Amino acid sequence: MTMLDRARAYFRDLQARLVDRLQALDGGASFGEDLWDHRPGRGPAESGGGRSRVVQNGAVFEKAGVNFSSVAGTLGPRIAARLGVPPAAFRASGVSAVIHPKSPRVPTAHMNLRYLEVRTGDDAPPLRSWFGGGADLTPYFLEEDDARSFHAHLRRACDRHDPAFYPRFKKACDDYFRVTHRDEGRGVGGIFFDDLTERPEETFAFARDAGEAFLLAYPEIVERRGGEPYGEADRAWQLLRRGRYVEFNLVYDRGTLFGLETGGRVESILMSLPPLVSWAYDPPPPQDPKARALLEVLREPREWT
Amino acid sequence: MTMLDRARAYFRDLQARLVDRLQALDGGASFGEDLWDHRPGRGPAESGGGRSRVVQNGAVFEKAGVNFSSVAGTLGPRIAARLGVPPAAFRASGVSAVIHPKSPRVPTAHMNLRYLEVRTGDDAPPLRSWFGGGADLTPYFLEEDDARSFHAHLRRACDRHDPAFYPRFKKACDDYFRVTHRDEGRGVGGIFFDDLTERPEETFAFARDAGEAFLLAYPEIVERRGGEPYGEADRAWQLLRRGRYVEFNLVYDRGTLFGLETGGRVESILMSLPPLVSWAYDPPPPQDPKARALLEVLREPREWT
Repeated sequence: MTMLDRARAYFRDLQARLVDRLQALDGGASFGEDLWDHRPGRGPAESGGGRSRVVQNGAVFEKAGVNFSSVAGTLGPRIAARLGVPPAAFRASGVSAVIHPKSPRVPTAHMNLRYLEVRTGDDAPPLRSWFGGGADLTPYFLEEDDARSFHAHLRRACDRHDPAFYPRFKKACDDYFRVTHRDEGRGVGGIFFDDLTERPEETFAFARDAGEAFLLAYPEIVERRGGEPYGEADRAWQLLRRGRYVEFNLVYDRGTLFGLETGGRVESILMSLPPLVSWAYDPPPPQDPKARALLEVLREPREWT
Repeated sequence: MTMLDRARAYFRDLQARLVDRLQALDGGASFGEDLWDHRPGRGPAESGGGRSRVVQNGAVFEKAGVNFSSVAGTLGPRIAARLGVPPAAFRASGVSAVIHPKSPRVPTAHMNLRYLEVRTGDDAPPLRSWFGGGADLTPYFLEEDDARSFHAHLRRACDRHDPAFYPRFKKACDDYFRVTHRDEGRGVGGIFFDDLTERPEETFAFARDAGEAFLLAYPEIVERRGGEPYGEADRAWQLLRRGRYVEFNLVYDRGTLFGLETGGRVESILMSLPPLVSWAYDPPPPQDPKARALLEVLREPREWT
């Protein structure tokens, strides 16, 4: 099996296991399934498709989507230049999840793994290949235990491969998920890696460990916080904070903007947007001490391990 | 009085009259007032400020903001290059309004007028100046009467100055307010003009007529539709459509992105975002015939006069 086949198989499998785990956590809801074909003509991808699995209005998850995709095509000159390769054939596959729980006591979470390879001809060996991805947590109230356990899982996955990974990818995550115009982070971070082109075999092993770490780390938090009571003010705060999530995804997120620009499937790309969101003009600062503590961490990221 | 003084005085006066009119239409709510100073350091503006007038949770208007601003500074090289002038001192003033009614039967509306001038020194005459602006309507259900009367008011304002204006600015509006990734317009359009540098005296007269046209056109629609009953499904449709409004403003709107990039006042820039918004994954098409008719017009803009 080629690396692409193996990456694809892992991503597909991770999607299935993540959906099973989320379904079990939710109790009631079941995830729908949409098989889709890439609609060519607006972007570099010429063939392929994917599978979106989404639940809406579950008992625990107000909206959660886990998406798998696999596409192939020819890189446009602009994208090729950015990647530092000649305009050539590419193949790519990825899995991504965005989970918006109903309870403001349970954080929103995001994970993504992707593999891209470029070759000069169908039978040529890959000219270059990249693994990228990450996982990050967006709570509405600061629970230090949650941030610590989430980061600890990711750190263990990193440390198994390179002691330099966690500090580097943790900082990359804080830097990337920044709502610049608000001067605040999107959440309490995690890891983010974008440019792993060397040693594909080891990198693939690391990507898998990152995926497994998320599969452990996030459900743990859902179980810890799922039963906590909350009131109307907490829900209002959550809807307001979800607005910042939208601001990040639509103004800054490279994956979202790249997908929209290159004619990706809009429903799968914008699956990441929360189900219900509010924007108030100049809202008063929150009174809840854990909401206030969150804002401090968003301004100034902290070390969690 | 210089043109800048006169434009500023008109914009300020239009803000006051628009707020009065909206307040009267709302009956209950009164608009708050925020005076703000420009926070320098992140953009080309070095001094100035503005006045934001906002109502939230009014009887008719769920969120409506009318903003006046007046700033001065030095153009950065990139912005100067885009405008085709040397990096020079600039002064700018503008008024903008975004009105989100509570009832889905009443359309959302937007208007904006702005004046920008560039000069080589404080005492030098303006090297070049621009008027820009426009007005557009975003209904949730197609009411042909509303689209027709709105466009007719704007057309009269245009025709008074140049018979070429309305067709040109109507098309510019349809082209500009396009949610490209959805292949649909933001609403039923209006007029949009961005590059009026010639004959400042006549252009100023036209900009004033456009402002007055909006002041007549929109309240007429609010009065016509304000009393119409609506149900939960209509409200759900409105929240979903408001998501498209957010998508346009955060992904495409030049004014919003320019403001966020150059360190403008975030609360005033994002005043445009609706108070409550929903995103559903792959929602079913609406059953209501007027909602379906709206979608057709959004795909293929129509002539209304």
